[in-house]
Amino acid sequence: MTDKPKSHGRLAMRPTLQPRSLMDAPELRGSWVAKVITLFPEAFPGVLGESLTGRALKHGAWRLETIDLRPFGEGKHRNVDDTPAGGGAGMVLRADVLSRALDRAAEGTPADRARWPVVYLSPRGRRFDQATARRWSRAEGITMLCGRFEGVDERVLEEYGIEEVSLGDFVLTGGEIAAQAMIDATVRLRPGILGNAASTEEESHASGLLEHPQYTRPAEWRGRPIPPVLLSGNHAAIEQWRREQSEKITRERRPDLWNKHESGD
Amino acid sequence: MTDKPKSHGRLAMRPTLQPRSLMDAPELRGSWVAKVITLFPEAFPGVLGESLTGRALKHGAWRLETIDLRPFGEGKHRNVDDTPAGGGAGMVLRADVLSRALDRAAEGTPADRARWPVVYLSPRGRRFDQATARRWSRAEGITMLCGRFEGVDERVLEEYGIEEVSLGDFVLTGGEIAAQAMIDATVRLRPGILGNAASTEEESHASGLLEHPQYTRPAEWRGRPIPPVLLSGNHAAIEQWRREQSEKITRERRPDLWNKHESGD
Repeated sequence: MTDKPKSHGRLAMRPTLQPRSLMDAPELRGSWVAKVITLFPEAFPGVLGESLTGRALKHGAWRLETIDLRPFGEGKHRNVDDTPAGGGAGMVLRADVLSRALDRAAEGTPADRARWPVVYLSPRGRRFDQATARRWSRAEGITMLCGRFEGVDERVLEEYGIEEVSLGDFVLTGGEIAAQAMIDATVRLRPGILGNAASTEEESHASGLLEHPQYTRPAEWRGRPIPPVLLSGNHAAIEQWRREQSEKITRERRPDLWNKHESGD
Repeated sequence: MTDKPKSHGRLAMRPTLQPRSLMDAPELRGSWVAKVITLFPEAFPGVLGESLTGRALKHGAWRLETIDLRPFGEGKHRNVDDTPAGGGAGMVLRADVLSRALDRAAEGTPADRARWPVVYLSPRGRRFDQATARRWSRAEGITMLCGRFEGVDERVLEEYGIEEVSLGDFVLTGGEIAAQAMIDATVRLRPGILGNAASTEEESHASGLLEHPQYTRPAEWRGRPIPPVLLSGNHAAIEQWRREQSEKITRERRPDLWNKHESGD
């Protein structure tokens, strides 16, 4: 067991370097960093190591650093949790243990939470959405604390000014998958990650509407033709059809989004 | 490259066996199955292979089967996608390619979508929540289709009666992380997965309220004491304090949940 943070990506550097010199290095300028505190560092980079995010990680367009919580534990067995005060099922991650890992993660990062958010992934938090991803993508990096068991000691959240963020209205076994989802959604908004920057603009939730249906070859499949307008070459008509489809689907599936869209117009 | 589905878990069996004989095998009775169609099968089981879900996977309490989409592609290069009809950025997964993978996944599964949901992970879908996880956990298994690029040909969704489900209002590079999140949320509701079944009942979103704060040793940390009521031994007072905290946090952070809770009472 080592207490050294593990970095993924070709241009990974030790976090103990000064932030200034990190930013001065031309190959790292603009390199966004995700630091993840977790009991399961081996689950990273996971899906983030594949496809576009994986290629960008290898090229140093962003960096991923996992900080294993275990070595910061108490005693011979490196205990990280204890029973909940007041009773109840499960175990609670200790404030003192978490604070040591958070202090390690803070090395070389700005204290300003706008420049470097520190978040705890929890179903009790505000819901993660595209606006949050956009905000985080404009920061220099982020520190994410993955919970397990019943939760974390509330005092560490207060003491460190930690933002609680939820992936959605469901309960996960731990924060690791939520961290990967949020990192993926954020990293892909950074310049140079997606092959075609235009893609991000057209997608669901960028416009506040769900995306129109898509079709590709073959022109007919199992008796189902591609809608003729899409093969007409009339760009204005295609644009209008897609817009109408987006509006229809949003109204039907997500009246909440539709109402927000309408009131924002 | 093989076109055999890959199974994870000690009791994994080939999907070409009859479903009846599968269910009759005592060691597999009640074994929930997730089949995932993906271009990145190596990203599985990922986080699902760790901790409680990982232990349950190893013991055969649930099974994970990845189906690599690539071998079902067209031509020498096994192309799975093509440009969008009507133009635009990105690529669309072909209906004919997807249908071959879906047919493979359907082998040995019931056609009834209530017994075996078939879902496409997409930001255009209805939002995944704890009620969906509960519904899926009562099925015999699930087939998940992970998209990449701009999306999938709409016709395959119609032809196969596929349920579109979204992890939330944000855009991911692909459906793989969403699949892992939804599998995790679902599997942990199955009997015998969590060490302590009581845990699922107390957590956020089971009651419709966010969870109260948690504390554990040390009793005082950085000048912050554990709230005295939690150390009082008075169970009724503890229960009341926790309930009040849950209500307060829900009102503050999630007025939408609070309103739903109030109107449901």
